[in-house]
Amino acid sequence: MTPERRQRLEAVLSKRQNDLTVVLENVADPHNISAAMRSCDAVGVQEIYVLNTKIPRHKKWGAKSSSSAAKWLTIHQFTDAAACFEAIRKKYDRIFTTHLESNAVTLYTLNLTQKVALVFGNEHAGVSDEVRALADGNFIIPQVGMIRSLNISVACAVCLYEAFRQKQQAGNYDTQKLSMQERNLLWEQWAQENTESSQ
Amino acid sequence: MTPERRQRLEAVLSKRQNDLTVVLENVADPHNISAAMRSCDAVGVQEIYVLNTKIPRHKKWGAKSSSSAAKWLTIHQFTDAAACFEAIRKKYDRIFTTHLESNAVTLYTLNLTQKVALVFGNEHAGVSDEVRALADGNFIIPQVGMIRSLNISVACAVCLYEAFRQKQQAGNYDTQKLSMQERNLLWEQWAQENTESSQ
Repeated sequence: MTPERRQRLEAVLSKRQNDLTVVLENVADPHNISAAMRSCDAVGVQEIYVLNTKIPRHKKWGAKSSSSAAKWLTIHQFTDAAACFEAIRKKYDRIFTTHLESNAVTLYTLNLTQKVALVFGNEHAGVSDEVRALADGNFIIPQVGMIRSLNISVACAVCLYEAFRQKQQAGNYDTQKLSMQERNLLWEQWAQENTESSQ
Repeated sequence: MTPERRQRLEAVLSKRQNDLTVVLENVADPHNISAAMRSCDAVGVQEIYVLNTKIPRHKKWGAKSSSSAAKWLTIHQFTDAAACFEAIRKKYDRIFTTHLESNAVTLYTLNLTQKVALVFGNEHAGVSDEVRALADGNFIIPQVGMIRSLNISVACAVCLYEAFRQKQQAGNYDTQKLSMQERNLLWEQWAQENTESSQ
């Protein structure tokens, strides 16, 4: 590994956040998943939960492509909602779903500097009742237009960047948030990815 | 037109903003353009400038599709950058480009409650030197990840929703911003679209 590459990996690691994650429930289109992963990487979200209870396990994330964010993320795959949320609860204090309903609050009222998981649902059906029951509440991205829906990848990016804005204001990117253990584990994985990429 | 439909159109018109616009310079992929339009519609941006100096005029915006935002927007097409920016200058006080360079400020330091135009460039080449020279400054969407670029449609949505957040805080959605003349003109166009859609 070149010194420049090492420096780059370390710089990115130092910004990774261990208190924000994204959950994709039965998101069917691989483009939406890879776009969500790219947004996660961009704001420093390290792990993502892919929960497929109604659709088959995804075959690939485009991980072979050099522009894929998947290889820099920790991806947890589940086929059982209860097991998935049990795992999430161990690390995150609040779980919010994006689900259009009258008691939903808007994105901009959420405190995204706490340990929080944001759940996005299927392109057509949205977040399931089962998953909503496992979460702490719903939120919406406000809209004032004629078309009343946003693409998943757009919705995910808007939420992640609102989190980024709040977390930056709160100083979350000023010091390393990962524990040394988390950091060292990722460093080993990334160094391996880096070697494979350059072959 | 049903009373419900009339009410819906009027509600959307009452949120339209006449002090924020998006300029797409040589954005080649029609999906990126239609996604940008959908985000514009979602936050109440009424007009969009499509400037194609290096690529052919786009044939369609997916305007036939009922889910297309294009029919609810005012689309200005230009093939000459100087003419395009002359038109923009008549309505907007500040023009900012998204261009990666060291003197760029970040999105979150921009005042997006002023009369402002945001310029997004070609997927590969970015905003051209010609257009940068016609603008007031550059900004970047901050990123802390391994992949160092965002898709245009994602970048556009993140910027528009940051504008939405600022404008909502400033009360920009509380009272109608369009002049009666602007409103009436749009009402006529939309009523026509509505008739065509329902046929």
